[in-house]
Amino acid sequence: MSSNQRFKLFSDPVHGFISVPKNVIMDLVQTPEVQRLRRIRQLGVGHLVFPGAEHTRFNHALGAMALMQDALANLTEKGTPVRPEEQTAALAVALLHDVGHGAFSHTLEHELIEDFSHEDMSRVLLTDLNERMDGALDLALAMFDDTYDRPFFHQLVSSQLDMDRLDYLRRDSFYTGVAEGEVGVQRLLKTMRVHPLSGGADAEVMIEAKGIYAVENFLISRRLMYWQAYLHKTVLAGDELLRGILRRAQTHLDAGPAPDWLQRGSRALLFFLDHDVHADAIETPEVRDHYLQLDDTDVLFSLKQWMRGPDPVLADLCHRFVNRVFLRVRFLSERPDEAQIDAWRADVADWLVAEGLVPRSEAAAAARHYLTLNVSRHTAYDSDEELIGILGRDGTARELSEMADTTTISDLTGFVEKPYVCFPKPVDLELGAVSEG
Amino acid sequence: MSSNQRFKLFSDPVHGFISVPKNVIMDLVQTPEVQRLRRIRQLGVGHLVFPGAEHTRFNHALGAMALMQDALANLTEKGTPVRPEEQTAALAVALLHDVGHGAFSHTLEHELIEDFSHEDMSRVLLTDLNERMDGALDLALAMFDDTYDRPFFHQLVSSQLDMDRLDYLRRDSFYTGVAEGEVGVQRLLKTMRVHPLSGGADAEVMIEAKGIYAVENFLISRRLMYWQAYLHKTVLAGDELLRGILRRAQTHLDAGPAPDWLQRGSRALLFFLDHDVHADAIETPEVRDHYLQLDDTDVLFSLKQWMRGPDPVLADLCHRFVNRVFLRVRFLSERPDEAQIDAWRADVADWLVAEGLVPRSEAAAAARHYLTLNVSRHTAYDSDEELIGILGRDGTARELSEMADTTTISDLTGFVEKPYVCFPKPVDLELGAVSEG
Amino acid sequence: MSSNQRFKLFSDPVHGFISVPKNVIMDLVQTPEVQRLRRIRQLGVGHLVFPGAEHTRFNHALGAMALMQDALANLTEKGTPVRPEEQTAALAVALLHDVGHGAFSHTLEHELIEDFSHEDMSRVLLTDLNERMDGALDLALAMFDDTYDRPFFHQLVSSQLDMDRLDYLRRDSFYTGVAEGEVGVQRLLKTMRVHPLSGGADAEVMIEAKGIYAVENFLISRRLMYWQAYLHKTVLAGDELLRGILRRAQTHLDAGPAPDWLQRGSRALLFFLDHDVHADAIETPEVRDHYLQLDDTDVLFSLKQWMRGPDPVLADLCHRFVNRVFLRVRFLSERPDEAQIDAWRADVADWLVAEGLVPRSEAAAAARHYLTLNVSRHTAYDSDEELIGILGRDGTARELSEMADTTTISDLTGFVEKPYVCFPKPVDLELGAVSEG
Amino acid sequence: MSSNQRFKLFSDPVHGFISVPKNVIMDLVQTPEVQRLRRIRQLGVGHLVFPGAEHTRFNHALGAMALMQDALANLTEKGTPVRPEEQTAALAVALLHDVGHGAFSHTLEHELIEDFSHEDMSRVLLTDLNERMDGALDLALAMFDDTYDRPFFHQLVSSQLDMDRLDYLRRDSFYTGVAEGEVGVQRLLKTMRVHPLSGGADAEVMIEAKGIYAVENFLISRRLMYWQAYLHKTVLAGDELLRGILRRAQTHLDAGPAPDWLQRGSRALLFFLDHDVHADAIETPEVRDHYLQLDDTDVLFSLKQWMRGPDPVLADLCHRFVNRVFLRVRFLSERPDEAQIDAWRADVADWLVAEGLVPRSEAAAAARHYLTLNVSRHTAYDSDEELIGILGRDGTARELSEMADTTTISDLTGFVEKPYVCFPKPVDLELGAVSEG
Repeated sequence: MSSNQRFKLFSDPVHGFISVPKNVIMDLVQTPEVQRLRRIRQLGVGHLVFPGAEHTRFNHALGAMALMQDALANLTEKGTPVRPEEQTAALAVALLHDVGHGAFSHTLEHELIEDFSHEDMSRVLLTDLNERMDGALDLALAMFDDTYDRPFFHQLVSSQLDMDRLDYLRRDSFYTGVAEGEVGVQRLLKTMRVHPLSGGADAEVMIEAKGIYAVENFLISRRLMYWQAYLHKTVLAGDELLRGILRRAQTHLDAGPAPDWLQRGSRALLFFLDHDVHADAIETPEVRDHYLQLDDTDVLFSLKQWMRGPDPVLADLCHRFVNRVFLRVRFLSERPDEAQIDAWRADVADWLVAEGLVPRSEAAAAARHYLTLNVSRHTAYDSDEELIGILGRDGTARELSEMADTTTISDLTGFVEKPYVCFPKPVDLELGAVSEG
Repeated sequence: MSSNQRFKLFSDPVHGFISVPKNVIMDLVQTPEVQRLRRIRQLGVGHLVFPGAEHTRFNHALGAMALMQDALANLTEKGTPVRPEEQTAALAVALLHDVGHGAFSHTLEHELIEDFSHEDMSRVLLTDLNERMDGALDLALAMFDDTYDRPFFHQLVSSQLDMDRLDYLRRDSFYTGVAEGEVGVQRLLKTMRVHPLSGGADAEVMIEAKGIYAVENFLISRRLMYWQAYLHKTVLAGDELLRGILRRAQTHLDAGPAPDWLQRGSRALLFFLDHDVHADAIETPEVRDHYLQLDDTDVLFSLKQWMRGPDPVLADLCHRFVNRVFLRVRFLSERPDEAQIDAWRADVADWLVAEGLVPRSEAAAAARHYLTLNVSRHTAYDSDEELIGILGRDGTARELSEMADTTTISDLTGFVEKPYVCFPKPVDLELGAVSEG
Repeated sequence: MSSNQRFKLFSDPVHGFISVPKNVIMDLVQTPEVQRLRRIRQLGVGHLVFPGAEHTRFNHALGAMALMQDALANLTEKGTPVRPEEQTAALAVALLHDVGHGAFSHTLEHELIEDFSHEDMSRVLLTDLNERMDGALDLALAMFDDTYDRPFFHQLVSSQLDMDRLDYLRRDSFYTGVAEGEVGVQRLLKTMRVHPLSGGADAEVMIEAKGIYAVENFLISRRLMYWQAYLHKTVLAGDELLRGILRRAQTHLDAGPAPDWLQRGSRALLFFLDHDVHADAIETPEVRDHYLQLDDTDVLFSLKQWMRGPDPVLADLCHRFVNRVFLRVRFLSERPDEAQIDAWRADVADWLVAEGLVPRSEAAAAARHYLTLNVSRHTAYDSDEELIGILGRDGTARELSEMADTTTISDLTGFVEKPYVCFPKPVDLELGAVSEG
Repeated sequence: MSSNQRFKLFSDPVHGFISVPKNVIMDLVQTPEVQRLRRIRQLGVGHLVFPGAEHTRFNHALGAMALMQDALANLTEKGTPVRPEEQTAALAVALLHDVGHGAFSHTLEHELIEDFSHEDMSRVLLTDLNERMDGALDLALAMFDDTYDRPFFHQLVSSQLDMDRLDYLRRDSFYTGVAEGEVGVQRLLKTMRVHPLSGGADAEVMIEAKGIYAVENFLISRRLMYWQAYLHKTVLAGDELLRGILRRAQTHLDAGPAPDWLQRGSRALLFFLDHDVHADAIETPEVRDHYLQLDDTDVLFSLKQWMRGPDPVLADLCHRFVNRVFLRVRFLSERPDEAQIDAWRADVADWLVAEGLVPRSEAAAAARHYLTLNVSRHTAYDSDEELIGILGRDGTARELSEMADTTTISDLTGFVEKPYVCFPKPVDLELGAVSEG
């Protein structure tokens, strides 16, 4: 390849060609940390509901970086200068912003490490990479931490309208085929502007008034993608099942050393099941290394082994995940009381015995894996986060919800919570008046 | 073409191939009434703001017919039988629902004929066609008039979620490039169901609960297309200009017989300018024939002639339309009082004199064409129209806004009105605090 | 609009947003010469066969300019510096390359002015604009004329792989819905390189070896668009009909002063019918001004008038065009001899008399308008034009057809000619063995 | 779900919504055999070159079934009746045609089982499923075997223009972002016709003459997808690496019982490495069961374990695959002789020693894994297979290459073979004049 090839091209069905500069950015793409993202699907169990949505976090990381290129080009055009080292740092942060995500993304996030946040792990990995690269990511780290004195760079990677969200909404909409989630990414990028703080907004990156409908559509599309894809009932059912499997596996570890058949699964996965790892420990080499070894492959391979193991409950749960025989999810108008839950679980226990899956003596314990309660939550526009600023034609900045036309914004700010129960389809649960849809 | 070719295929960039049955439907497509729709752009002056949006009413009529085919196939799959003659009648109505539209669509609708509605003209033309076709459109007419005893057919062509709206939103979004207007048409069609009337809904065509987000997205996209495309400020400026031109031309007809130079324009257009045609008269052959002769070509050709005519005001206005030198539109927070308008017009009159366009004596009259007031209006979901029914999983039907999740629907029901003023860009109008955006 | 808005955005369904720099380029967009392109459809009569393809030359001109921006950005990335004034000049040429096109594009090109080429007219208009703009287009003109000392700029606007062809193929494929014509425009732009001349290639703009399949696909798509869209039988039928109409109208002018009813049509059109204008005269103000006044509107309006005129042949031909009742086109394996043509015309004359359209005495003359012969021609890759150079990994340049894999290229170089006959569908012409498809 | 829901909808980004009938077809979708296809990527290692192309064989199987629905609907429209049981059988075959594919699709097809063909395994699995379903697939099996007396059903699933090819070309083009591979699937389906055999064609499914350019484009797109995607040099490099890994692992099994560290990998994979399984044995339960247990997960998980194992060569090769540090592929103008290969391998052995990967004594053996030779092969249109028939307007059928316009077809019939060598990038191999690109 001749020396004047300054970019490596990646063909991407969403953004067309993505140009990765052959500098520290391409070096980062080639690290095991970033390559590992190829083995983590963007949507956790979403591909089991939307068969086209097998796309990975690697794909998304490249996409966020590509949008950062577009955003910076647009800001430069509008008079905000960006120095080459800032450009590189910003691309690096966009590429690495989610590098800390683990196997099955959000599904297992809180299952493997207590109090975990993937952002913290991203920071650990960024720091590691920076050391290995002799400080080449110093500026990127400052942007990530929001300590750089041009805060708009931080906002471009972490705010309610950042490159992460723009790429994932566009990409997830594309791959799931949920056309309603389509976002006018280019219009948003073209109407972005860096403006000194004032008015109700607390971010320097603002949207020009003519882009306000695109912002509104973005928030509504995001809300719609939550209810229609990310929090789709069958996705929730898959999430519950996967978490149930890990909890059941853990009961075997709690009882003593891991039996051989359990060890046919992934050691990296067993490490987290066998240790009470807390978020405080993510910087220790042992935790970090095991974390990096763990990806979707490990989880799925383990399930495929355990479905042939001696524990009929674990085997059945694993079979259900592998062959997509999910439990049923029903939304409830309110969270049921304990008596109700106990009554339901008794029904499920009866069914488990009748099916011959477990003897009566073990049915109550097993029923806890087969009937679970949870709550799905979402806010389209979070008024506790950094707010979105709109820049009027007269040069004054106002917060999004203050603008005249956007009467719908106020509705988007409330938290929506939906409790739900997950249980075997054949069990005719008495959901009564609490059920909805 | 061999006899077992039962469809004529049209290649459509929006829906792919459209299959037109080679029966009365293809006969209708070939009538002058329908071919005439090829010469009327779907978006009036919209193509002057969105250069890709030159698509015509012919294109849209075929598209609405194609969606009707999909809708009926889906309803049949769900257990609502459709007889062949009903199928043909429904396709005919979908094809012809807007056949009464005139030159420059909505822009001139109320300018040429007093109290005009294009639906009434569609009915006149449908009746004519039915006579020429010996009653082949009897059933189609009954569906159009909502006198047929299966009212869901009428709802499919005329309701808040009809084939007309589904096609035009999808199509206009496609051609304007306003991605935010994209609607999940297939999801809506796939979740449609015919259900006996009950609950809050007053239409038999309902949407299954799982399609509720698609409905919400549809309403929001429609609202967004109104503000971003149909009522775009520059589109409004074009509309105002075109109406101003016709009013100025009319002043010459009011003054006496049409001068020769004015007659260089279209006679069909002059007919309407020269007569006070009222909607009552649309069935008279003279009115109907002139109406059918008049399309976008006539208007545009007339302007190109008059821009070389002796009236400097008319010539300037025509030049402005032809060469796209529009006046400016500014939205106002409220409609100004007459004193304010007079003051503004005085400024404009001064400018016209300074520009040498008219002598002082004619400036006040001319200023009435150069500074106009108007109001744009839109409701995304009209609670006075037939409401959208949602069919729950339990088989009960409820009106859209009663459903739990759709907190945003209530906002979509209000009329939004925006007064605006239209004036020459170089005039530095004192808009004060009333102006917005 | 604030001063740091350096671009005007146009929403384009094909390329997304197009950024027009607010310098001489935006000034050019606003000239009557360029605005006039809004009234000339890109595909002549193509919209009568592909109802979605109403797109105009204005749309295409913007698109070619946008691709030039991409091409120059890519070349810059690869080490070919482009100075700001070169950038502006190149965008100007891309925008204006086809500004000389007239009403109904290629259909009437040779009908109105003898020996006409639209490129020559583009040059006349470029020169005019340059004078009005005090030489701002000097460099653009040099690029247009290929006298600038960096010839690759000329190749980007005029070669077998120029921005014109890239945009029109992509655009026409998009609007006609002919998916097979889709071209990988971004891949071609990303693999373009400026390289000193050597080997078999005679152009400096070359394609890197890895883009060779994209080039091949481009040539094949172009060939396919010719046969499937540009030279579609029904398009040819429309072309023939339109040219026949002008010839029939001319017979009335040849016979004496234009009768009143004929003058109801466009004066600009009649000017060309009434004068034997030769290409030598396109610089004269009279010719140029009439040419600029003439667009699709004039032609269509004239036809709509003449279809109500006293000449039954002209009226019938005009009615056929306006209401899309085309004649039939049949391809022939070879051009028939005069005796054959005479025999066919006799059949057609009989039919005209039988239909009552003309008396026997006028039938022979009329038949000349109803049965015409012509030949469609196309070469996908013209070995007499500037050839396409491929740049190997080793830095050597070779001509496309020399490259090993592209065994199909040789087939693409031959001229394909298809003679055809055009005649009324009801006439059962004895085409014998000469007919094909 | 109410009883009149006769279809389960799948959202697919390529075809929109796919309707799976809730009969034996939906039962088949829910079998472990079909669900297993979710864990086999369509493009083997292709996702490592095209990061968007993670799509699976499950997705493709649904797509082929959806195209079969469209094809049958079109044929019915054209007068070929299809009975309900034929419809179901045809959908079943389309869904299951590739159910016999194994882990990493074509990459490992010939590596795990000698003389294997995935079609044979598909037949074994179809037979199994048919037994479990009490003969519900009898007709489907007859269509698969081409023993059903309406052979066009077989041609729709297995010919040069079958639903398999139509779906995978469209789908692979979509997910890789290789726009040039786009195929006009709808046009092909719309121009298909069942016609009695005659002329040069030997298949009943024919394409009407007006679809000939779409056929040609299909063949050319297929050829292009081969060279640009399926046989992309980096894809070939990934294939070679994966096969090299399995061969290296096998050396440990050939030497005696599988060591513990090797057994950390997948037992299903080790089964095939440890036994000389021949295609004759695929019906034995042991082989079939292990085959069904084996998917992409097993292979990838095994590599992740072995990269931490004691064999430095296997560890390095596995690391290279997991972290995408591929070897280099260079095409050669002809296959080199053994002396040449030995000389190259000596260079590679030197490099392995210099790198400290192996001691000198093991370098020669290791070099066989690091420098491999192979040949890529492709024919776009195979004149030895069933040929594509074109149905003229006059009702006569001819073989594709006999049709006048398609001068390029003859070029598409030749086998193209490209030998290549695969070796470590840092080794400066003397490729001399034999290398190309």
